[in-house]
Amino acid sequence: MSRKWLIKNGTFVVFEQDRSIVQGYMLVEGDTISYIGEQLPEGAEDAETFDGKGLLFMPGLINTHGHAAMSLLRGYGDDMVLQTWLQEKMWPMEAKFTAGDVYAGTALSVLEMLKGGTTTFLDMYDHMDEVAKVVQQSGIRAVLMRGVIGLCPPDVQQQKLNEAIAFAKNWHGQADGRITAMISPHGPYTCPPEFFEKFVQAANDLDLPMHTHMSETRAEVEQNVNDYGVRPVQHLLNLGMFSRPSLLAHAVHLTDEEIDILAAHNVAVSHNPGSNLKLASGVARVPALLGKGVVVSLGTDGAASNNNLDMLEEVRLAALIHKGVSGDPTAVPALEALKMGTEYGAKSVFLANTGKLAAGMKADFIALNTEQAHFLPKTDYVSHVVYSAGSKDVEHVWVNGEQLVKHGACLTLDEERIRREAQEAFEGLLAR
Amino acid sequence: MSRKWLIKNGTFVVFEQDRSIVQGYMLVEGDTISYIGEQLPEGAEDAETFDGKGLLFMPGLINTHGHAAMSLLRGYGDDMVLQTWLQEKMWPMEAKFTAGDVYAGTALSVLEMLKGGTTTFLDMYDHMDEVAKVVQQSGIRAVLMRGVIGLCPPDVQQQKLNEAIAFAKNWHGQADGRITAMISPHGPYTCPPEFFEKFVQAANDLDLPMHTHMSETRAEVEQNVNDYGVRPVQHLLNLGMFSRPSLLAHAVHLTDEEIDILAAHNVAVSHNPGSNLKLASGVARVPALLGKGVVVSLGTDGAASNNNLDMLEEVRLAALIHKGVSGDPTAVPALEALKMGTEYGAKSVFLANTGKLAAGMKADFIALNTEQAHFLPKTDYVSHVVYSAGSKDVEHVWVNGEQLVKHGACLTLDEERIRREAQEAFEGLLAR
Repeated sequence: MSRKWLIKNGTFVVFEQDRSIVQGYMLVEGDTISYIGEQLPEGAEDAETFDGKGLLFMPGLINTHGHAAMSLLRGYGDDMVLQTWLQEKMWPMEAKFTAGDVYAGTALSVLEMLKGGTTTFLDMYDHMDEVAKVVQQSGIRAVLMRGVIGLCPPDVQQQKLNEAIAFAKNWHGQADGRITAMISPHGPYTCPPEFFEKFVQAANDLDLPMHTHMSETRAEVEQNVNDYGVRPVQHLLNLGMFSRPSLLAHAVHLTDEEIDILAAHNVAVSHNPGSNLKLASGVARVPALLGKGVVVSLGTDGAASNNNLDMLEEVRLAALIHKGVSGDPTAVPALEALKMGTEYGAKSVFLANTGKLAAGMKADFIALNTEQAHFLPKTDYVSHVVYSAGSKDVEHVWVNGEQLVKHGACLTLDEERIRREAQEAFEGLLAR
Repeated sequence: MSRKWLIKNGTFVVFEQDRSIVQGYMLVEGDTISYIGEQLPEGAEDAETFDGKGLLFMPGLINTHGHAAMSLLRGYGDDMVLQTWLQEKMWPMEAKFTAGDVYAGTALSVLEMLKGGTTTFLDMYDHMDEVAKVVQQSGIRAVLMRGVIGLCPPDVQQQKLNEAIAFAKNWHGQADGRITAMISPHGPYTCPPEFFEKFVQAANDLDLPMHTHMSETRAEVEQNVNDYGVRPVQHLLNLGMFSRPSLLAHAVHLTDEEIDILAAHNVAVSHNPGSNLKLASGVARVPALLGKGVVVSLGTDGAASNNNLDMLEEVRLAALIHKGVSGDPTAVPALEALKMGTEYGAKSVFLANTGKLAAGMKADFIALNTEQAHFLPKTDYVSHVVYSAGSKDVEHVWVNGEQLVKHGACLTLDEERIRREAQEAFEGLLAR
């Protein structure tokens, strides 16, 4: 029989048509929320109770673009021109990454993400079996994929593609369903067209969604036009990607026509404001995308270009920067920014049963400690979460009904060991 | 005899020509840092010791523009057009503020600032005696001034000016020197020229620096040109303000010529990135100002337009947004952003003896807990503070050599009472 427990005296952030806050009760049965509302639910007599006083319960944050292992390179090169940073700092170090390094970096990242209230993350990298192991052990939910750069001979291309397919077959649906897979060519500028099309075919064969980087920099868009005669959105449309459910990372540089194509094909966008600002890639046209009905979610990207994995910070950046840049103080209101970090995140990674607090949804949620100065006065909790709160306020985290963080400490991971091994892995990379 | 204590095993952020990190010792005698360096200093034999292992010591953050009492209106109106927000939300409530409300709101803000690592704040508001009382009680350092809006009959103008002068006379140098005063007409668009000039005269008479709002919005600049035939910088120059040491808040909309005038007269600027973004005021030309040698520091503005008082967040925004908007990833590097939040903050409010860790400086400093995932690997602590850390990491805070925050708890303020009274004050404002 699955565990049944009841939160009482709680304040809950909901995304209902006419309200965003419910004061009362939430019932969790096994891995699922079975009730949320003002009244004590029927069937709760035999449930364990949890006193929610002083806590704000909200859906867990969903990080829809990243490379967790790159936290091993946090602070190893900042404030540099993109190409110098990549060629002199990132690529030489990443070329040395072993499976053990990916495990160590991913564990460091998952620890940080869980403690900061992220309950689902997308990861596109190499040595993905290691990432899946960390997901199994930690209890977090994840959408995983072997990201493939195709700038290599055909036999190496084919081998990488085979790895991506094998990973998806092996891991999709594993870890009590917490792991799902996607198919991910790295980008249109790193995968030649005929190679990119093989990923579309694989996604069709496996009936999985697709993910890729697109239009992060202006130079990349110009290159696409030079190489293929069209801008990246048309290029990916031509390659058949949008016949699959698709998620694009970055999408900073878009024309109106490109936004229309994305909207017409239900293509989702992972907006990465922190990374786009830090790398000086530009400011994505988020209000225009949202205005056309495109699902826009939020990602941190890797910690080498962010430099943390704090999704509440991305939510705040999404709410702030588009106002400042557009001159419109009503752009990306607080509730919309919060949905980008949660509900739209779930839609972006094609998970139907997480991203909001409602009966029938998976019990992926977090509790913030509101008994603090910056949550006062009690005016508008959605505003406080978006404009005032921080990852410091995350007190508890549950995924699939299991508590993973309690009073700020991770219950499933050995924090001290993970920190030590991450430092050792970095020193090993430097020494090799 | 003043207390003498020694931090050992510490990692210290310094702003020396050739290095920004010192590993070793810091000696504090009374309210002053007397040594910092790798070697155990002479004369430290009889000092109490403090083990700095796992902590990063850095100068306390300096918030150079704000209205602390406005935290009572946090979340009371967001995502609105500026004039609607002011006229329908802020001004009607602020008109009801009593001295008791200012005390309650300021205490709430000082509590939040101290716990977030701010050791000095500038405050421009009304009922400033109440603000000074909170400063006395809390142990924080502050630069205080009665901010005067002159859109009123001459007798009321004169009364307000008298209040501003009396406040400065009464409080400058009080609280063991932790309080200093400035003279502050609210802005060129709220103080007619002949009234503004009286503040310049008062500042001359009292030998105090001046502070005002300037060029926060484009509309305000256009109004200045319409009313006086010149842009705000020339207008303030004409009124004699820059004959005094001066600090301008916001300065978002500036021409090259205006930047040259500010540089020529050593006028400092308080950049308020969070508030400017949220109110959609625009993005200040910070790289251009820094390039011309203008001292640029950071402020939160009031919590109604931010919506927190987290200076590490302002440091991060300053480092991020100018890269994203300019397209230059080397704009406002990490160390420069950190100095804006500390060393340049001290210069902006004309305090010669705080803002950095060095022998002879006041012992205003904070310690971050670096034994956390997001401080790894140990690559570059300045980068980690600016791009990865948050107010959650502030473990200890000292001002004038006195510890005010210990393991995240404020030693000098009754947090529970302050939170309760702030909520009651807000409810009282709603009810009146």
